[in-house]
Amino acid sequence: MAFLTDDKLVIVGAGGAIGSTMVQTALTMRLTSNLCLYDVVAPGMMGVMEEMFHCGYDGVTLTATTDPEEAFKDAKYIISSGGAPRKAGMTREDLLAGNCAIARGLGENIKKYCPDLKHLIVIFNPADLTGLVALLYSGLKPSQVTTLAALDSTRLQSAIAKKFGVKQYEVTGCATYGGHGEQMAVFGSAVKVKGTPLYDLIGTDACSEADWEQLKKDTTQGGAKIIELRGRSSWQSPAYCSVEMIRAIMGGESFRWPAGTYVKNEKYQNIMMAMDTTLSTAGCTYQMPKGTAEEMAKLDQSYAHLCKMRDELVTLGIIPAISEWGKINPNL
Amino acid sequence: MAFLTDDKLVIVGAGGAIGSTMVQTALTMRLTSNLCLYDVVAPGMMGVMEEMFHCGYDGVTLTATTDPEEAFKDAKYIISSGGAPRKAGMTREDLLAGNCAIARGLGENIKKYCPDLKHLIVIFNPADLTGLVALLYSGLKPSQVTTLAALDSTRLQSAIAKKFGVKQYEVTGCATYGGHGEQMAVFGSAVKVKGTPLYDLIGTDACSEADWEQLKKDTTQGGAKIIELRGRSSWQSPAYCSVEMIRAIMGGESFRWPAGTYVKNEKYQNIMMAMDTTLSTAGCTYQMPKGTAEEMAKLDQSYAHLCKMRDELVTLGIIPAISEWGKINPNL
Repeated sequence: MAFLTDDKLVIVGAGGAIGSTMVQTALTMRLTSNLCLYDVVAPGMMGVMEEMFHCGYDGVTLTATTDPEEAFKDAKYIISSGGAPRKAGMTREDLLAGNCAIARGLGENIKKYCPDLKHLIVIFNPADLTGLVALLYSGLKPSQVTTLAALDSTRLQSAIAKKFGVKQYEVTGCATYGGHGEQMAVFGSAVKVKGTPLYDLIGTDACSEADWEQLKKDTTQGGAKIIELRGRSSWQSPAYCSVEMIRAIMGGESFRWPAGTYVKNEKYQNIMMAMDTTLSTAGCTYQMPKGTAEEMAKLDQSYAHLCKMRDELVTLGIIPAISEWGKINPNL
Repeated sequence: MAFLTDDKLVIVGAGGAIGSTMVQTALTMRLTSNLCLYDVVAPGMMGVMEEMFHCGYDGVTLTATTDPEEAFKDAKYIISSGGAPRKAGMTREDLLAGNCAIARGLGENIKKYCPDLKHLIVIFNPADLTGLVALLYSGLKPSQVTTLAALDSTRLQSAIAKKFGVKQYEVTGCATYGGHGEQMAVFGSAVKVKGTPLYDLIGTDACSEADWEQLKKDTTQGGAKIIELRGRSSWQSPAYCSVEMIRAIMGGESFRWPAGTYVKNEKYQNIMMAMDTTLSTAGCTYQMPKGTAEEMAKLDQSYAHLCKMRDELVTLGIIPAISEWGKINPNL
């Protein structure tokens, strides 16, 4: 079976649950013949490497390293799940500051070791912010950096399918936009349930207004449900969806969900958030989502919330004031 | 993307590390549009189900149940990882009695709920014995039941590649036969390193006789290495290789490694062990491996070891004496 590319793909955080699943998914999809595992801790990563050797993937060159220079040299694609998880006693700000500092290091390593990188996908939380920081310090173009936002849309699709007792793939047009936190904007306008517009069904016996509110709540809290059932936050779905994203960027099958992208238009500026995106070998392009006045107002709120977090990063000294960004990355 | 089949595939032990990875691998490979998760414990399995929903696999009907009747009804393919795992310090043989009782239940459920099953793959250890017991009680034909044996061969390939400093796929013809325990027979006769027969290289500066003994040892202990590095026994590679097996059985890409199969020929009888196998929609066919006198003697030893374990099962009352097998399964 042919590979989609022979360009080097680096999985950052390859020793972790998400990273190891990304490695295996990328190899199973036969995305590239050249895959590098990178992690700051060796034993877990080497265990993943051994497992991949034992899979016997044909025609693949695998490397593994804890040295960022060795990992990033000649890299053309990077997916990074390499953040620190939130631990007991940590405030949200601690997580924000800690992971954004990691994202800054990621961006700086890209600028230093692989400025010719084609695309970076950032998936560690809060991804809207870590993605923004990594973009800033990487020197890459906005079209070259995306964040994982798809899980909110697939959770919406899943929640609606359960509610109406249909197969998940019979629910189409699901999307959430804006931030990837609980302040996301859930868009129902384009959703169809077996061909019938969702908004024609809301308020009927099949789905009350309160039910719809609950569905939106289930969507924003889909991640918490996994923690409840499996005893830890999700890893299979973030790994899978982010590898689907890089597949589209490599020229493979198109990606069906929104991605987080850098936005600078008449309404929203200097922020990373989920928009109506298209991923291809040209990178990520976006347009404004179309929705009801209520949905657009929700998107405004989500944007405002993200701006607040971004400004916090300025206050914390992790990123400079927006007016200074052009000095670090002229593409912004 | 089309599916290989619409027949029902059941993953037994779907809530576990191996099972959940098999579910995801089968869906990522788009083997079937009809996949059922089965486990005796609900929460973990439902967590896997949620994760798969969040992946948004298109066109797939997923079900999950703790009821064997619901799971097995109309099943055409089953892969079972549903045994108790091996813990650090335990040999595969330690697991014998407990997991063979589970295998008996698996076979009985197949006979009761899905006698039209096309193929069963058993991967919980000691797989040679659990596979044999499941075959006996399932009533299936020998060609319809296989066990996972591939990891020994991929570990051999990996060990040789490291030793000679070549890419893993440049080492060809790797195979181990007989049991999947430490008594396996490692065959080097057909191995080539970048086109050069391995046996021409052994005894040279590149690889002493002692080095070759060490390589064989590394092969038989490849699983222990994973426990050492990751703190638990392997899950990504057994999941991946067993899904590759069922893909071949479904008519997909051919499977490149030996599988465990029921053997009854002039030399070996009434045993399940790795042979030179071919997997296809016709099931599993095999021929005797070809090797040096020393290798064949090692295979005899491995067979004798398996017979001892099989006879232990008779003594323990888990299976009847061989003379009685035909009453339970006329195909044997």
